[in-house]
Amino acid sequence: VAERELIALVRDRIPHDGFILGPGDDAAVLEAGRVAWSTDLAIEGVHFTRRTGASPADAAVKALNRNLSDLAAMGAEPLAFLLAVGLPAADAAGVEAMADALAEVCVRNDLRIAGGDLSGSETLMFAISILGRVEEPLTRSGARAGDVLAITGALGEAAAGLFADRLPGSSVTSAMRERNGRGCARVREGLALRPFATSAIDISDGTAIDVGRVAEASGVRIVLDPAKLPRGHGVARASEILERDLALNGGDDYELAITLEPDQVDLARAAISPTPLTVVGVCVDGTGVTDPEGNPLEGGHEHLA
Amino acid sequence: VAERELIALVRDRIPHDGFILGPGDDAAVLEAGRVAWSTDLAIEGVHFTRRTGASPADAAVKALNRNLSDLAAMGAEPLAFLLAVGLPAADAAGVEAMADALAEVCVRNDLRIAGGDLSGSETLMFAISILGRVEEPLTRSGARAGDVLAITGALGEAAAGLFADRLPGSSVTSAMRERNGRGCARVREGLALRPFATSAIDISDGTAIDVGRVAEASGVRIVLDPAKLPRGHGVARASEILERDLALNGGDDYELAITLEPDQVDLARAAISPTPLTVVGVCVDGTGVTDPEGNPLEGGHEHLA
Repeated sequence: VAERELIALVRDRIPHDGFILGPGDDAAVLEAGRVAWSTDLAIEGVHFTRRTGASPADAAVKALNRNLSDLAAMGAEPLAFLLAVGLPAADAAGVEAMADALAEVCVRNDLRIAGGDLSGSETLMFAISILGRVEEPLTRSGARAGDVLAITGALGEAAAGLFADRLPGSSVTSAMRERNGRGCARVREGLALRPFATSAIDISDGTAIDVGRVAEASGVRIVLDPAKLPRGHGVARASEILERDLALNGGDDYELAITLEPDQVDLARAAISPTPLTVVGVCVDGTGVTDPEGNPLEGGHEHLA
Repeated sequence: VAERELIALVRDRIPHDGFILGPGDDAAVLEAGRVAWSTDLAIEGVHFTRRTGASPADAAVKALNRNLSDLAAMGAEPLAFLLAVGLPAADAAGVEAMADALAEVCVRNDLRIAGGDLSGSETLMFAISILGRVEEPLTRSGARAGDVLAITGALGEAAAGLFADRLPGSSVTSAMRERNGRGCARVREGLALRPFATSAIDISDGTAIDVGRVAEASGVRIVLDPAKLPRGHGVARASEILERDLALNGGDDYELAITLEPDQVDLARAAISPTPLTVVGVCVDGTGVTDPEGNPLEGGHEHLA
């Protein structure tokens, strides 16, 4: 299949309306206004694996969700994305399924494809760039002593799915494997939490490491109680130590960690219902992330070899 | 070196002022307005090689110029870029030189870095996303029968540099090798040509294939005289057949091909002086790209394996 045919196949399957100039020229042209803008790589062997049965379409969806999750953490409204794909020859037959899977995510998030790039590659990789509209962005730097730390949804299922073959028996379900490929970014929740949150981050690298980034950017210490971390259903049946590690350091969950004043919790919880919002810690004077006994919490995923 | 230190090293070396929220959060925030937006991959072994002595810094500059060239072809003014790098462990030591080289391109083009992503990777790769401001974009689709086709600068040196070891002797200079790593995008020229051009494209994939894209998007036939293609100094000393092939199909030159009405040529030429503008063809009714005898011209680089 020629490059141009593959490109047309992708474009035709994914919404691409509403641009001044859509896919097909040297660049797309659009009225962007005030935007949040982000990029994330997803490289096979680093960010995803087929070992658990995930398909290239699962990987494409994961790549797009990694980017949507960044917009969610800014409280931004998804606008459009560019899709650059490094495609091994053996995966060319999977491009149609990738495009269809991405189209599903687009429809769910009112997102459009503005263009992209396609190249041969030894390794399957996705480099997505995403634009979202935002007036008052949520940042990592607004947490203040006295704020509480809260987390959307539940943690650890993606990591449990990824390490399925190393987990003891029946606690890993096919839904968890699926979630590793297809976890949804909390776009709706990020928009709804904007009036209440003093800071926000997406915790796709792992709760401990990402909360640490908020602590650093905001100049506070965050006291996080690992026992309070909301666990996914399958994770809660794993052994206690594993369970804690999955929730604290698992990564790939695409949940949001926000800080907010204590009297805003009920309002924030109502705003994102039925998605859970669980208070797991508090901000105090100091630096770093610790458990309630003062022990540093570390871990999570840096993607550099 | 840790991921965060490498990221700080890159950010600190490249201009990143003027954003509502600059690098370091989940996304950058900026007042973008009406923008041209593009992405291009540069993967080792596909888009660049170290075989000719090019360094990772050369490759990074080439990657950024590939993206700037897309903005040039839209007649857009560079605003900011996101830099995603897949970095083999062995190249971590070269990150400082990469950042310094990119900073040079930024200063020359009034461009800023808004953020990015960094990941381990077996292959060195760059995925850049770029935003430029544009009011009335140049497109591929505006060529009309009666327009002439003109090309900025000179062609073939980049390809000659790339294939230096297969070229006969003395015609390849170190400047040509350098150009393959560091060719400059025609940003100033794209902006200056906007009032005159009816269509534009950057011809980084090769003159024949890219002019063919204009013919297709505009619904015209383009008659291109290969003998008129402007050759770089070194290329003109190569054998006649090789010379024609380098100019017609070499790729990587980051020159612009524009169409314009014949009576606009002198004005357009004056607008981009001292960069040459050479008339090499004419648009007529029909489809495709041919030489003056009517033979189809084909070739160039698709980057899919």
